Amino acid sequence: MNKKVFEFEMKVRDYECDAQGIVNNANYLHYFEVTRHEFMASLGTSFKESHLLGVDPVVSRADLHYKSPLAGNDLFISSLTVERKGIKIIFHHAINRKSDGALCCKGTIEVAIIVNGKLSRGDCYDELMKQYL
Amino acid sequence: MNKKVFEFEMKVRDYECDAQGIVNNANYLHYFEVTRHEFMASLGTSFKESHLLGVDPVVSRADLHYKSPLAGNDLFISSLTVERKGIKIIFHHAINRKSDGALCCKGTIEVAIIVNGKLSRGDCYDELMKQYL
Amino acid sequence: MNKKVFEFEMKVRDYECDAQGIVNNANYLHYFEVTRHEFMASLGTSFKESHLLGVDPVVSRADLHYKSPLAGNDLFISSLTVERKGIKIIFHHAINRKSDGALCCKGTIEVAIIVNGKLSRGDCYDELMKQYL
Amino acid sequence: MNKKVFEFEMKVRDYECDAQGIVNNANYLHYFEVTRHEFMASLGTSFKESHLLGVDPVVSRADLHYKSPLAGNDLFISSLTVERKGIKIIFHHAINRKSDGALCCKGTIEVAIIVNGKLSRGDCYDELMKQYL
Repeated sequence: MNKKVFEFEMKVRDYECDAQGIVNNANYLHYFEVTRHEFMASLGTSFKESHLLGVDPVVSRADLHYKSPLAGNDLFISSLTVERKGIKIIFHHAINRKSDGALCCKGTIEVAIIVNGKLSRGDCYDELMKQYL
Repeated sequence: MNKKVFEFEMKVRDYECDAQGIVNNANYLHYFEVTRHEFMASLGTSFKESHLLGVDPVVSRADLHYKSPLAGNDLFISSLTVERKGIKIIFHHAINRKSDGALCCKGTIEVAIIVNGKLSRGDCYDELMKQYL
Repeated sequence: MNKKVFEFEMKVRDYECDAQGIVNNANYLHYFEVTRHEFMASLGTSFKESHLLGVDPVVSRADLHYKSPLAGNDLFISSLTVERKGIKIIFHHAINRKSDGALCCKGTIEVAIIVNGKLSRGDCYDELMKQYL
Repeated sequence: MNKKVFEFEMKVRDYECDAQGIVNNANYLHYFEVTRHEFMASLGTSFKESHLLGVDPVVSRADLHYKSPLAGNDLFISSLTVERKGIKIIFHHAINRKSDGALCCKGTIEVAIIVNGKLSRGDCYDELMKQYL
């Protein structure tokens, strides 16, 4: 895959770990969400801005594979690539520990686009994300 | 204090514990919030309903004393009493472990009331909560 | 599917909703986790107890399909069935709004079992969950 | 107050906002916690490291005053000063919105120190934090 990759560095916060001392599974969805928002910001827009224009991306599916757990204070690189698939946009996410590059979690997030209340292709996103598609 | 007490039973969820195996401090504010919402529900209303009527209670202060930590799966009783103090409403919260009655956390939550965008006494609350005041 | 179904009723907490006024996607993983823990409790055990016996189930994959969003204070039924698949255990989860039965989220959670640090079939789980398999 | 101030910049994550579109009250405790952990890291240590040495700081009180709400994507400066008060250590926290400097939340966090299971002054902290005391 020669797709352009967006990367964002983050650090595990202790309260994101559970009693096992590792990041709770649900938090990877939070990390992915933050990364998509930072990705949108890097393109000069935001989901909030989309919303005001009547364009609402909604997550229709999340598929996560847990590989190696992150622990408190671990630095990690959260990366994504984007794919257009019919009326959906697919984000391919990966989270790698910074210290050793180990893959901690990878996942795909399928996003459907609602324009003025109706399911739509949301072509505006193709233009916006063209350097990544 | 002979005030009428509202009680609500809850159970610690494992993901609310942090790496030390005990409930993270911030979650007690969540427990208190849930208890106030259940309290409002017991009075036949909700903060959402208030909001639609232009009445918005906002937390202006939260003062929590941590006593004995809750751990995963602990059952606990979250209780509250209410006090009117000038234009504010004060909720006195306590959380006791069910198994031994131990006090885990107590706190006061000060709520200011905004009616149509302006700070107000929100007299409607006195009528609503009269059996607890 | 004639599998025995485990059901657990829950209620959305307001802080689980995000700025769109609906439950944030990540919280469905929390709801699933709580349901598995209550399921284990219904069988007279817990993941904590397993851990003390050197048996650690770990989530290796989570695949969620979002259908209809839950909002603040919604009551919902979280249900699951269990399947043994090679060395993994698969939990099939569903969350249905109580008021109208609408499917809000369904998902599969794959669990791998680590016994004394090594990947294992964890046969003890077959015995424990036999009425559901 | 001429105390040395530790500052850490953060950004609101959308999932930290609740249905009112503003940061949920409990998250300020998370922001404070992250700030104390970054403060410890700036001193070359961590609470985890303390724990391994048998020294466990525990929050005994949290007193928060909410001033102006943060919203999604807001950048903010989280700052703290430290005070020794008898056997406790007091952290004075403040969170200011970056765009206009507005005070969003201030609070004091009282920390008690447990050394090998007993309440202690934890003199090692005075040495460690001397430039801030």
